[in-house]
Amino acid sequence: MKRLVLLWGLVVIMCSGLPCSAPVSSEPRATANAAMTAGMRAVMEEQQTAWNHADIEAFMKGYWNSPEVTFAGSSGVTRGWQPVLDRYRQRYRDAAAMGHLDFSDLEVHPLGKDAAFVLGRWHLKRANDELGGVFTLVFQRFPEGWRIVHDHTSADEKRN
Amino acid sequence: MKRLVLLWGLVVIMCSGLPCSAPVSSEPRATANAAMTAGMRAVMEEQQTAWNHADIEAFMKGYWNSPEVTFAGSSGVTRGWQPVLDRYRQRYRDAAAMGHLDFSDLEVHPLGKDAAFVLGRWHLKRANDELGGVFTLVFQRFPEGWRIVHDHTSADEKRN
Repeated sequence: MKRLVLLWGLVVIMCSGLPCSAPVSSEPRATANAAMTAGMRAVMEEQQTAWNHADIEAFMKGYWNSPEVTFAGSSGVTRGWQPVLDRYRQRYRDAAAMGHLDFSDLEVHPLGKDAAFVLGRWHLKRANDELGGVFTLVFQRFPEGWRIVHDHTSADEKRN
Repeated sequence: MKRLVLLWGLVVIMCSGLPCSAPVSSEPRATANAAMTAGMRAVMEEQQTAWNHADIEAFMKGYWNSPEVTFAGSSGVTRGWQPVLDRYRQRYRDAAAMGHLDFSDLEVHPLGKDAAFVLGRWHLKRANDELGGVFTLVFQRFPEGWRIVHDHTSADEKRN
């Protein structure tokens, strides 16, 4: 019995660092992760739909409405919900410029119970060109739901 | 008294979502955040020193040594510690190509007690050119210390 308690203690200590592929009782965690993943995927699906209706304000609902939200990319860092919205509006002036957006290859990586990062690809199809690349979204859980607190988006280096 | 308890309950509920600029008892959290920040900054200082000694293997010690670690950028996603090392070796073949690296404008954003993301700028000075851009590093705390589990790095769009 004493040995069992010691072994259990060892498992707890070993699993105190994240991430840990726990060999026991992983089901509740898997369920929690599935719920987290569904929450973030729902936000991104709403964003995709909003974009494809040329509704940037609705698209922006996926972001934390705060002066601290950040967007990083090849033009540096944009800080604050309003400046991020302004940046999108400036780059995508109308429905033609916005084109059709698809997110794919989404991977949700939980970071504790109230945060995660999502790695994925974006693809924009327009009348005369196609663009694409990868993004990293840091999500945090707020009373109103999952919101993007940081977005780092890159465009692919070369297009054929 | 009852009103006070209710008010306190409201504060607790309001602060259950992260991030929260708690109006009370923020000192222990600030101290914890300072320790986290110091841990991550130390990893990045070691990386900077290693790079400037043209030692990519030592630089790679800052990354989670796992097939799941990811590096994202304009060339897509590289997955796994060894492929990330190989990518660096291929792009920076010798000390001249590696040049002198500086990290600046570091911002550590805690995501719970065992994770954070760091936003910052990188600058590379070489004999014949200079490069720079922004990065997002997702750090997690492991028994061996803070390690980068995901790196998204961009180069600036235009250089003068």
